[in-house]
Amino acid sequence: MQAELIFTGNELLHGFVLNTHAQFLGMELARLGIKVTLHTAVGDDWDTMKAVVSEAHKRSELIIITGGLGPTTDDITKEVVAEVLGVPMVIDEASLAQMRAFFAQKGQELPALFTRQACFPAGSRVLPNYKGTAPGALIERDGRVIVILPGPPRELEAMFKTSVEPYLAKMPGRKKILRTRHLKLTGIAEYAVQDLLKGLGGQGNPSLAYVAKPGEVHVRVYAQHDDAATAEKMVDELLTKVRDIVGEYVFAVDDEKPEEIAGQKLLAHRMNIAVAESCTAGMLGAKLTEVPGSSRYFLGGTVVYSNFLKEKLLGVPPEVLKRYGAVSEETALSMADGVRRLAGSDLGLGITGIAGPEGGTDQKPVGLVYIALTSGSKRICRRYVFPGTRHAVRKGAVNASLQMINNFLT
Amino acid sequence: MQAELIFTGNELLHGFVLNTHAQFLGMELARLGIKVTLHTAVGDDWDTMKAVVSEAHKRSELIIITGGLGPTTDDITKEVVAEVLGVPMVIDEASLAQMRAFFAQKGQELPALFTRQACFPAGSRVLPNYKGTAPGALIERDGRVIVILPGPPRELEAMFKTSVEPYLAKMPGRKKILRTRHLKLTGIAEYAVQDLLKGLGGQGNPSLAYVAKPGEVHVRVYAQHDDAATAEKMVDELLTKVRDIVGEYVFAVDDEKPEEIAGQKLLAHRMNIAVAESCTAGMLGAKLTEVPGSSRYFLGGTVVYSNFLKEKLLGVPPEVLKRYGAVSEETALSMADGVRRLAGSDLGLGITGIAGPEGGTDQKPVGLVYIALTSGSKRICRRYVFPGTRHAVRKGAVNASLQMINNFLT
Repeated sequence: MQAELIFTGNELLHGFVLNTHAQFLGMELARLGIKVTLHTAVGDDWDTMKAVVSEAHKRSELIIITGGLGPTTDDITKEVVAEVLGVPMVIDEASLAQMRAFFAQKGQELPALFTRQACFPAGSRVLPNYKGTAPGALIERDGRVIVILPGPPRELEAMFKTSVEPYLAKMPGRKKILRTRHLKLTGIAEYAVQDLLKGLGGQGNPSLAYVAKPGEVHVRVYAQHDDAATAEKMVDELLTKVRDIVGEYVFAVDDEKPEEIAGQKLLAHRMNIAVAESCTAGMLGAKLTEVPGSSRYFLGGTVVYSNFLKEKLLGVPPEVLKRYGAVSEETALSMADGVRRLAGSDLGLGITGIAGPEGGTDQKPVGLVYIALTSGSKRICRRYVFPGTRHAVRKGAVNASLQMINNFLT
Repeated sequence: MQAELIFTGNELLHGFVLNTHAQFLGMELARLGIKVTLHTAVGDDWDTMKAVVSEAHKRSELIIITGGLGPTTDDITKEVVAEVLGVPMVIDEASLAQMRAFFAQKGQELPALFTRQACFPAGSRVLPNYKGTAPGALIERDGRVIVILPGPPRELEAMFKTSVEPYLAKMPGRKKILRTRHLKLTGIAEYAVQDLLKGLGGQGNPSLAYVAKPGEVHVRVYAQHDDAATAEKMVDELLTKVRDIVGEYVFAVDDEKPEEIAGQKLLAHRMNIAVAESCTAGMLGAKLTEVPGSSRYFLGGTVVYSNFLKEKLLGVPPEVLKRYGAVSEETALSMADGVRRLAGSDLGLGITGIAGPEGGTDQKPVGLVYIALTSGSKRICRRYVFPGTRHAVRKGAVNASLQMINNFLT
């Protein structure tokens, strides 16, 4: 079975609204094992919409159309579908009664315009709208299914969950169930990850895909199978192999938030932390405190953009700065020790690096970052060269810092 | 002239990524008076992509295609376009040299895979990528134009602005010109902004629209006219009226970046700044240092999440903390003075507040934030109650801090 999605509305074409339906429906259908081949967004224009729906109807067994169910004259979706299918529009008395009741609640009569919302292509199964007034429709014809959903996201999502998902889950001809998991890596470029993983294949089923974001690379594993448990097993096995090879760069698995894990681990170890940031200038503190209640383990820290403050606040010895430079293992360790002493914390973390675009040299290129973590008994430091822009280098340093905290606290 | 947009990438079909390109390009083309009739999203599948590009090429004078320009085997966009147009792929030596230089900066050789990024359909005008390594392409053929842009939003947006917009602005056959400008406000809720502006109308042409984001509300003014200058005048007049009413909340106009303006103003005044952050925990330092070269005016600061650090690092008197509380005008001013003294800076800025979700009281609700800015001769403090989530409160405080710096330095 092949499916496609059609989104209607001039506001989408003109970019006044972000198309969140594409994400929601795309993900829900993938989860159900329904293969979506195309998304189309089209304006409230009869001829173009008719051409799009008509082409889709020739190609695909399942079409989901969103938007254009309202009472005004630019809401034409149901009428276009009726014309493509060659059926008349008919009134649904039950829907009309419900809309009357909805307005009666507010002491109002049903405005005449709204009668259109109770009209559907003949043969429609009417889908109730519990979050608004415009019902949706599901039409089975010639072995094909067209589903029409309202435009407002709250209404669409509720209607999909209550009426459409149970229907689709019973449809025959679903392809294989798609399962997917992903790893998030930092401190390595996308092409280098691909190079390390090229021996795994990953072109068929299960497969591998890569997405590069500032400061991170996502490796996504997909598998399809008729049986959900088998699909999951295929994903997990390949994920384990990926992890065996690039595990040292992994800072998050699936949608876990490394800053939350750091918080949980610090609480479990009854430890607190303070941070000394140079090139990230507060980004790590900001990230750690995105977690509500982080004041239980995050004391604060210093943003030491200048060497003067590195010396004055953190007690980094001038000889260290002079001999090894502000961007060095020695300075990072000294910053971590210094902020630990200053804040009286169990752990101290220091970040120093060259975010760019200026300031790089042959020995110390843009992207070079040292991150150090120290406790009373242990001092570690790791050297990174983060690829990409200033923004990517800084984001990478934050991700790597969280990874370091989480590896430190086993 | 009719235009359509094609977005490539399995991640879009499966909903793993929100299609922000649709919004950006839709809005930019509307602004240029180019009528977009269709958006299509298609996976990294040769046959489907070829069918989509081929149909679009029959229908539309302008096609913009995004994504699939990377070095890996699932990046097939340029090859598909070459096949649809019936032209060979050719190597662009200049692009190759640039990519070599990009890697050489980091002391690395160009990985062999990347050679693909320098190959284009014959007859392409190569569009430089200032934010990444994959160049785009613009192909004129048989009176039709195909533009190919990279997938990462930062790269796409920069390339569109520098290379594509100037080209499109000269194309004949454009329709009614849409002009739009916007103001960014902070420290006020969306409904309150709408309420203040309801007297302005803004339903027709020109019109007003509102978008709420974490920590900010955007008020957008639109106008359409055959004549660009008239459309601009309509927009500017309504924008001025909006500003007369809600000016005190405006922290940015159009796409200006308040952190860049702060940097320019500090440089112009030959002043530097240090910041003491409590509830924002580093977000202001991180934002100020997004600007390359910010070390010329940003010295650093402290993240003082605990009262202990507020006293120890910034010298906030314990009596102040006890009598007025950590979230108070007195504490904010004392933090600003303290960090100024500590860093030896011209300006000191202090932020203290309750980001939530816990910690609010009747007198001091979640969202309450005091921001203080002090110099040798002047001390100011403003009280805010930011609406929304923890994230929104913290973002709002950063926006308001930048606004305060920029208003302070006239």
